[in-house]
Amino acid sequence: MELLPRDQIAFQRMLDTIRRNYERFGFLPVETPVFELSEVLLTKSGGETERQVYFAQSTGALQKENQGLPELALRFDLTVPLARYVAEHEHELAFPFRRYQIQRVYRGERAQRGRFREFYQCDIDVVGKDTLSIRFDAEILAVIHAVFSELGIGDFTVQLNNRKLMRGFFEGLGVAEGSRQMDVLREVDKLDKRGADDVRETLTGAGFGLSQDTVQKILDFVAVRSSSHADALARLDALGQGSDTFNQGVGELREVLQLVHALGVPESDYRLNFSIARGLDYYTGTVYETMLDGYRQIGSICSGGRYDDLASHYTKSKLPGVGISIGLTRLFWQLREAGLVAGVDESSVQAMVALMEDNQLTESLDIARRLRAGGINTEVQMEPKKLGKQFQYASRAGIRFVVLAGEDELARGVVTVKDLAREQQFEVTREQLASTLRVELEQTRALAGR
Amino acid sequence: MELLPRDQIAFQRMLDTIRRNYERFGFLPVETPVFELSEVLLTKSGGETERQVYFAQSTGALQKENQGLPELALRFDLTVPLARYVAEHEHELAFPFRRYQIQRVYRGERAQRGRFREFYQCDIDVVGKDTLSIRFDAEILAVIHAVFSELGIGDFTVQLNNRKLMRGFFEGLGVAEGSRQMDVLREVDKLDKRGADDVRETLTGAGFGLSQDTVQKILDFVAVRSSSHADALARLDALGQGSDTFNQGVGELREVLQLVHALGVPESDYRLNFSIARGLDYYTGTVYETMLDGYRQIGSICSGGRYDDLASHYTKSKLPGVGISIGLTRLFWQLREAGLVAGVDESSVQAMVALMEDNQLTESLDIARRLRAGGINTEVQMEPKKLGKQFQYASRAGIRFVVLAGEDELARGVVTVKDLAREQQFEVTREQLASTLRVELEQTRALAGR
Repeated sequence: MELLPRDQIAFQRMLDTIRRNYERFGFLPVETPVFELSEVLLTKSGGETERQVYFAQSTGALQKENQGLPELALRFDLTVPLARYVAEHEHELAFPFRRYQIQRVYRGERAQRGRFREFYQCDIDVVGKDTLSIRFDAEILAVIHAVFSELGIGDFTVQLNNRKLMRGFFEGLGVAEGSRQMDVLREVDKLDKRGADDVRETLTGAGFGLSQDTVQKILDFVAVRSSSHADALARLDALGQGSDTFNQGVGELREVLQLVHALGVPESDYRLNFSIARGLDYYTGTVYETMLDGYRQIGSICSGGRYDDLASHYTKSKLPGVGISIGLTRLFWQLREAGLVAGVDESSVQAMVALMEDNQLTESLDIARRLRAGGINTEVQMEPKKLGKQFQYASRAGIRFVVLAGEDELARGVVTVKDLAREQQFEVTREQLASTLRVELEQTRALAGR
Repeated sequence: MELLPRDQIAFQRMLDTIRRNYERFGFLPVETPVFELSEVLLTKSGGETERQVYFAQSTGALQKENQGLPELALRFDLTVPLARYVAEHEHELAFPFRRYQIQRVYRGERAQRGRFREFYQCDIDVVGKDTLSIRFDAEILAVIHAVFSELGIGDFTVQLNNRKLMRGFFEGLGVAEGSRQMDVLREVDKLDKRGADDVRETLTGAGFGLSQDTVQKILDFVAVRSSSHADALARLDALGQGSDTFNQGVGELREVLQLVHALGVPESDYRLNFSIARGLDYYTGTVYETMLDGYRQIGSICSGGRYDDLASHYTKSKLPGVGISIGLTRLFWQLREAGLVAGVDESSVQAMVALMEDNQLTESLDIARRLRAGGINTEVQMEPKKLGKQFQYASRAGIRFVVLAGEDELARGVVTVKDLAREQQFEVTREQLASTLRVELEQTRALAGR
């Protein structure tokens, strides 16, 4: 995806909003090199990932005899680099280690609409040493809420589940083995597409061999969606007691719900959803997905969960963690397709100093200098053009203020400002220009709730 | 270069400062994919570059028979991608096109101290269609000045020269050919290391065959450094008349100097330096280098200049431009080596809510919620620890404010704030907490001139 400046500005604003909220919650920045050693990158992954990896070779290496895999590969996610980073710098980091990482990742996908070989991931993780309190699982949900509230791309709901609860539930039904649970869940996932009868038939058929009663219990279970905070707690109570794993899952969900409430997340913005599973082999406790209420077809726009051990391949220390990821490139593309990208009509350039006569350039540059010193992003017209053309340019570029200083204004020590957003104009002294525009911009921001 | 969070925060602040100043001058963001087609990337470059390029291949492509160069390569600078971008989107862009691009680039260098295979470049360019006013050359210098003033890494001087002036000067001496001029300049560049006598000997020797008189004129010319704005203009006057090219160069330098003055750049921060050449084959007018006055051994920390045609390989349109580049990864590394990186002792996390008793967690989370809503980056201690340990953690992490709410404070509706930077503490109501800290932080910023 390559964007024209107007879209790039909108994209950059979303990136900035995500980063600002990550920092607001005390997460620290990490950037890792795009290259990892191929052997490190592929340690953790099966054949599927290997097919999608890009390898990098300098010309020198290319010319040598083929000696198996190249030494360097491009990261395909930010989780493996995090594991390598934490293992490598373990003794220099304070735990729990709270990091955010916003970088591009690379996958050798066939280029197609909405699939990208290079895309941004925006990740946060809290990584503990030996143990990590369940309390962080609640904080992560509060971060998701803060990010998507401020992004302003519409109502959303964070869907919450717990792998221990699911595992306990399935074991209680005699579906004990992990991969078999995943197979069942994959069938259940087709409910919307194929309908309950069809799924029921598959699960009671030869391949799965589950009883009608068991299948009904599964379908009832995965249908659970809470409608409020109190309802969520009531639904956990209604589950009753089960195995240790089951009870632990219920307890964790209950604590997360209570703390999320204490963190001030409105109860309309999260819910229990017992059909959320994510990857069974990786997540071990809390799992999250986030849906845009008006665009559920987009799928989850922010997902993640709790894992038992981040870096078992790279260190003997046990490093449990909880984290989420936002795939911003794909999300931006989807939002733009749906017409939901906000603010593309506003440039990062806030003011333009027009130029009418060549001999007024020095004055223009002085006005621009004052605007910039006052924190206003300002462009100067360097060569005189017809005023109509200058306004047209500013309007097309999404520049809000056009500043004019003709002979008359210069004589009176003022400038004329045209506010293209409000379609009004006013005069102001050169000294008060920057602060006046700053107030106008802040008012607009406050009105927009940004 | 991979950084621990403390250094990453300092690095990120420098990146943000550069970006903020680029935007302040009305430059628009552009990001391009890391991959370019190999044939595009290598069009412009000779064998030297080709040796340094990284090629990318997915596993599928690796397994195929070797069929020459891989299709994709990683960008080695931001200039070739800019040329390709402008040529590709020519009809959708407004000219003069002012873009900034801050991304990583890749070179297959042998890894060694201070040399990086992956590093940030922070570029701005103004690209015109058919023509581009010399006035932009002055604005670019004002941007360099704004960036390095705000970075606060010490006094600096932008060195200014003009390729037309140099070409005219050498042609006047009978050193007409471009590559021969470059050879002479390369010898002159060794003045500091080898001394004037040694260089004189080489230039009058068999290889060059210049007369004593010619060599003296060259040495006098490249020794020119202006000491003030008036001195710079006087030195241009003193050059007298020469060829058209020579006179044009003098005229351009004069106009740039006058506008830089109008843009409010202090005269101590720029100077003429007739020894600055940059690449003779690429730049055609104004050239810039930027030196840290106290650390000239670092070399130029921001360079660039004017070129006649950006994208002749990709479009028939003539696209003259002017631009600069800051190689931030290397600069950061050098500053850190010299102990000049400012602000590493300050975390991006501004406040930490301490936790003394487990049952006070809900109150802690409420306090954190208020701080974050008030714009303060806040971390919460999720599990009670000894207060001494919590202070130690905050201090080591560079977190300035520790917020305490024990039973006594909770009863009175206040919190205690320890300001670790000023080594003082105060009480404040929960409602006024965020605004109070914001004022403190702004005061500190104002005092530091940031």
